[in-house]
Amino acid sequence: MVELKELSFIPDWPPGPLDTYRRQSSFDWRQLKLVLEDTNSIRLKYKVWKVLESEPLFAKSKITLSTDEQKKIAAQQMMKIAKLDIVPPEVFAMGYLPRYRFLMSVNEALHAICPSLSVKIALGVGLFQNALRAMGTEQHASFYNAAWSRQIVTCLAITEVAHGSNTKRIRTTATYNPENQEFIINTPDFEAAKCWVGNLGKTATTAIVFANLLTPDGQNHGLHGFLVPIRNPLNLQLYPGVLVGDMGEKIGLNAIDNGFAIFTQYRIPRQNLLNRTGGVTPEGEYVSVFSEPTKILGAALEGFSAGRLGIMQEATNTLAHSVVIAVRYAAMRKQFGPDKNGPEQSILNYQLHQWRIFPYVAAACVLKTSVYSLTDLYLKTVEKSEANSNGIDLLSQSVGEIHALVSASKPYYTWTARDAIQESREACGGHGYLKAANLGELRNNHDACLTYEGDNNVLGQQASNWLLRQWTDDVQSPLGTVNFIKRRDEILQSTFDQLIKRFDITSWQFINHCLEWLMCWLMNSIADDVRNQKQNGAGSFEAKNNTQVYKAKDLSIIYAEFYAISSFRLRCLKSDVAADVKPVLEIIHQIYGLWVIDRHMVPFYQGGFAIGATFAESIRSQLLRSCGGLHTEAVTIVDALAPPDYVLNSVIAKSDGLLYQNLQNEFMTNPGALERANWWREVLPFPKSKL
Amino acid sequence: MVELKELSFIPDWPPGPLDTYRRQSSFDWRQLKLVLEDTNSIRLKYKVWKVLESEPLFAKSKITLSTDEQKKIAAQQMMKIAKLDIVPPEVFAMGYLPRYRFLMSVNEALHAICPSLSVKIALGVGLFQNALRAMGTEQHASFYNAAWSRQIVTCLAITEVAHGSNTKRIRTTATYNPENQEFIINTPDFEAAKCWVGNLGKTATTAIVFANLLTPDGQNHGLHGFLVPIRNPLNLQLYPGVLVGDMGEKIGLNAIDNGFAIFTQYRIPRQNLLNRTGGVTPEGEYVSVFSEPTKILGAALEGFSAGRLGIMQEATNTLAHSVVIAVRYAAMRKQFGPDKNGPEQSILNYQLHQWRIFPYVAAACVLKTSVYSLTDLYLKTVEKSEANSNGIDLLSQSVGEIHALVSASKPYYTWTARDAIQESREACGGHGYLKAANLGELRNNHDACLTYEGDNNVLGQQASNWLLRQWTDDVQSPLGTVNFIKRRDEILQSTFDQLIKRFDITSWQFINHCLEWLMCWLMNSIADDVRNQKQNGAGSFEAKNNTQVYKAKDLSIIYAEFYAISSFRLRCLKSDVAADVKPVLEIIHQIYGLWVIDRHMVPFYQGGFAIGATFAESIRSQLLRSCGGLHTEAVTIVDALAPPDYVLNSVIAKSDGLLYQNLQNEFMTNPGALERANWWREVLPFPKSKL
Repeated sequence: MVELKELSFIPDWPPGPLDTYRRQSSFDWRQLKLVLEDTNSIRLKYKVWKVLESEPLFAKSKITLSTDEQKKIAAQQMMKIAKLDIVPPEVFAMGYLPRYRFLMSVNEALHAICPSLSVKIALGVGLFQNALRAMGTEQHASFYNAAWSRQIVTCLAITEVAHGSNTKRIRTTATYNPENQEFIINTPDFEAAKCWVGNLGKTATTAIVFANLLTPDGQNHGLHGFLVPIRNPLNLQLYPGVLVGDMGEKIGLNAIDNGFAIFTQYRIPRQNLLNRTGGVTPEGEYVSVFSEPTKILGAALEGFSAGRLGIMQEATNTLAHSVVIAVRYAAMRKQFGPDKNGPEQSILNYQLHQWRIFPYVAAACVLKTSVYSLTDLYLKTVEKSEANSNGIDLLSQSVGEIHALVSASKPYYTWTARDAIQESREACGGHGYLKAANLGELRNNHDACLTYEGDNNVLGQQASNWLLRQWTDDVQSPLGTVNFIKRRDEILQSTFDQLIKRFDITSWQFINHCLEWLMCWLMNSIADDVRNQKQNGAGSFEAKNNTQVYKAKDLSIIYAEFYAISSFRLRCLKSDVAADVKPVLEIIHQIYGLWVIDRHMVPFYQGGFAIGATFAESIRSQLLRSCGGLHTEAVTIVDALAPPDYVLNSVIAKSDGLLYQNLQNEFMTNPGALERANWWREVLPFPKSKL
Repeated sequence: MVELKELSFIPDWPPGPLDTYRRQSSFDWRQLKLVLEDTNSIRLKYKVWKVLESEPLFAKSKITLSTDEQKKIAAQQMMKIAKLDIVPPEVFAMGYLPRYRFLMSVNEALHAICPSLSVKIALGVGLFQNALRAMGTEQHASFYNAAWSRQIVTCLAITEVAHGSNTKRIRTTATYNPENQEFIINTPDFEAAKCWVGNLGKTATTAIVFANLLTPDGQNHGLHGFLVPIRNPLNLQLYPGVLVGDMGEKIGLNAIDNGFAIFTQYRIPRQNLLNRTGGVTPEGEYVSVFSEPTKILGAALEGFSAGRLGIMQEATNTLAHSVVIAVRYAAMRKQFGPDKNGPEQSILNYQLHQWRIFPYVAAACVLKTSVYSLTDLYLKTVEKSEANSNGIDLLSQSVGEIHALVSASKPYYTWTARDAIQESREACGGHGYLKAANLGELRNNHDACLTYEGDNNVLGQQASNWLLRQWTDDVQSPLGTVNFIKRRDEILQSTFDQLIKRFDITSWQFINHCLEWLMCWLMNSIADDVRNQKQNGAGSFEAKNNTQVYKAKDLSIIYAEFYAISSFRLRCLKSDVAADVKPVLEIIHQIYGLWVIDRHMVPFYQGGFAIGATFAESIRSQLLRSCGGLHTEAVTIVDALAPPDYVLNSVIAKSDGLLYQNLQNEFMTNPGALERANWWREVLPFPKSKL
């Protein structure tokens, strides 16, 4: 067991009442952890956590600080972390793929303890650098390094007050003036004010502002990025001509200083245009550049997808943390029992409770592996483009396929995490409502992921549009995610009754066939629908909009689910998977697969795949049986998903299982908990008259 | 239009861009408001809001205050409000029903602006008084009045750290000592500490503590209520022998000082036992009292249900507020359009957006009327018991039926509001994530309702258990909510194909028949399931637990939905409903009914009610058509649901429709928004080296 030794830097869980469950389980949690995560990544995350645990600036406050104080601390942390040698210089000597993996693991580790900080760094360093790579040229290299070394604090200003999803309607202008070779950035009115710009509110010194490039001939050349100085780095004073403010409190992520900006005829040098794809001559002529098309494609992909993959990795951790909390609490919490006077049973014993939580446990495992494999696809595709290989068509198709996968998956992952947090919160009852349980913080911080980097509902349409093109045109799937479409006729003819004769309901073949049928049926049905609407005079925009509900929206989700379960299965088949852990991986696969089918059951009936009670009853009773099979394994599975207690930060789910002792400590040590309120004089009861 | 004049105290909505929608609608919003709410209640709420709007102590803070500050203000508000003549003395001369309605309306008005305060008052006055009425005798009358006049601040201590839902396992003891005629209250260990007690953390002077009454002979007579002094009302110092603390921060409702208490051999006088159903003689003999059984039944009902009905009223308002925000925002927010260069369209135009929001708009209207009628049933039943009428059997059955209705409906209402808030938050995109949009506050405060006054999942089982008894034993439904069970054979034989020949899919008959079939099928299926399990050796506890998923849990929800739509229909049939508003009521009924069926579609197929595509397709395409029919009406419907802007408190949903102007004001006037952070020196970028 060489690999288990490799995880020996993780200390054993402390002994305690959870050991009863741990002893019942059939495998070692480390074996599962090695299936779900990469050893290097685990090691790195533990290193980051260890460094930060001993830094006072990163200590968690017991009480909610004012948002101003939160912003201050996050800004300090952002500077401090650059000095902590978390990303040593060697990293930059690594190849593209291991370097990116390294940075992504650091981001995951940071996000798990300081979500606002990780977003600040992602916006202020990672995405800024990506944008420079995608759109800038060598003349902007100094900004690239300056952002990394914190000589500037940066931000990306795209969204405007009145336009988010429809970026084509952005109205900020950058008008070139050949007289002094400057661009004049201007905000026509408040509706075009840049907003939701992370880091802008209080700290950014430099922004990349997206604006319409206008040449002196009055031509609008569309959106371009511009490097725009915002504050003097010596004193953080705003430069004249830009009105910048902090947007105020949000539901969560309040340590990020989201800002708005209004530019009034604000002048910047010509060189500040990010001119990779097009520039302006000193005289004011617009010049397109179309060199190195594969690099540009790769860069575009990077721009699109890196942020979304980061969100998916974070959402997967959020999902994992919420089920760790729910399972450990349910194992320790006893309520009711078969005999009124006998012992009570753990709420983990109840079928309803298992059905509420275990599918999310399975989803956490599945999504851990699938986000890893999707990231791999992504990084390798970008790497290929960097290598400037030939084969632009194939690369272009791969980019399209990855973009569709990410556009389907980012909504799916973030919604799944949203639902898991809420179910866990409710499953932990009143104690789950304590701030110290951490579920509220998880929810409020996670909530933004449903909207940023592409609104979930809008993004999903990009995936379903791509899928529809695969259906109606030729299948172009170099990554193979929709090759099944080539078997469409055979798939659409299959039925539950046939399938169940060939395959066990718990088999991957059964689950895969069901999902393939479902996607084919939906694509077919949407294509018919669009055709009919158009024949009846509807425009393409209207026809597409009117196939979202029940159809295209679901299709994109199922595509994400299908990719997720397929990559989980491939992971489980690898030779490094320990034999002991295979049975539990099997149950996880079953639960996840049957749960997915259960949640999309209506179209199976609607499309004639199933008739009568058997299909629903078999799926559902098997799902419940499989959940029952996880009862003695769940605590060990969440041990594999759990970070150290300090990171999980939940008083009701510590790894020692000492639920009530931990609550007691918490209650007794809350600041001021036991003191008389110092405002007691102001709230005294009225004097007695008769009492 | 006498009635519309009656609403003339509500000012017209200010003119603005929403008028485009308002002019398109087919009815006057006041006509709808009169269907959804009682005029007296509306008038009273507006009065409360007017009084509090001008009280500085009730002004909303723009920034989140520390929880200590929040607690102080709520405690001050609780004292202040007693002086504001919001409940004038005449109210106590009213009959039971109008008096209770009055107090409930005041609670709704308070909850809409200060949810923590309304809970504090409900716990500290209303529920305390209810508990005294239910359990106390004349010797406790002075406490009753003292709570009302704020000479004492009270709380109810039931839940313990290790026991919430299973109250039978509460372990606090009250041991009678005849020597000094005292009870000794004792907490055996931290797991039996009272917790989650609202008002206890910092302010309560008196608690009703639920403890096991032990007589000197060692007998345990079960749970009884005891009046227990906690703090000296003169200085809020804790009395010796009780360790009380504040539980710390929660997800929401942080102005409530939830506390825990540990009693150490704490002595209280014999008279402090609430001895309505049983007392202890000075010598220590336990004496049961069984007089006036109907009154006790009524009191028991009051104890059970009043708090839950209050929560349902509050949840309905929360639901209403969230859809007001979502609809007004969607009407004003434009994004994309059929022509890339042409005008953009309101997001309210998109079918997907309508389908996400309009069912919740319909639900808000339906639940407004149904919580009103359920409250009516409840109050009249309690009133009957107060009148000490005969007919104990009938009353006992009514109490059972109301308890089932409330137990099914409290989970259903609160879950529906939960989902509506979340969908609205996402539907408002990034701007919905602003604290000033108010959806985050609604969500975090509402979240507790899913757990308190009966965990939703546990409570639902009480309803399904009652329904199952109706199915397997004789139907005993004096209120008529399950009389359809008597037609079970006929109902279970019906199919979609037959029904759709007799009734239009939008008709109430069609919708009702579908829901009746669904409930009968579920009850039948559960009864079979339980029988089979028992035949295979399962105990009753296990058999019931294993019929929750897909079955009993859904049954209880559908029962609540069925009652809701039935009472909405009865309301719409009344003679006071204006002719102009009838068509829109019809669409609301359709949307709600079809949406409910859509969400429970699988069992219709599973049970053979439907086969093939037609059922699902008809329901779904009609639901989408009906949603489309609400497009021009939705703004006016939410005008009928909306409170004044000050109460709604959402910058993105003011009644003037000036979305971006209001956002501009908000951004510019947030405290410190435009200033340089006063911690700028601590976060300066590192000095340039090369840049």
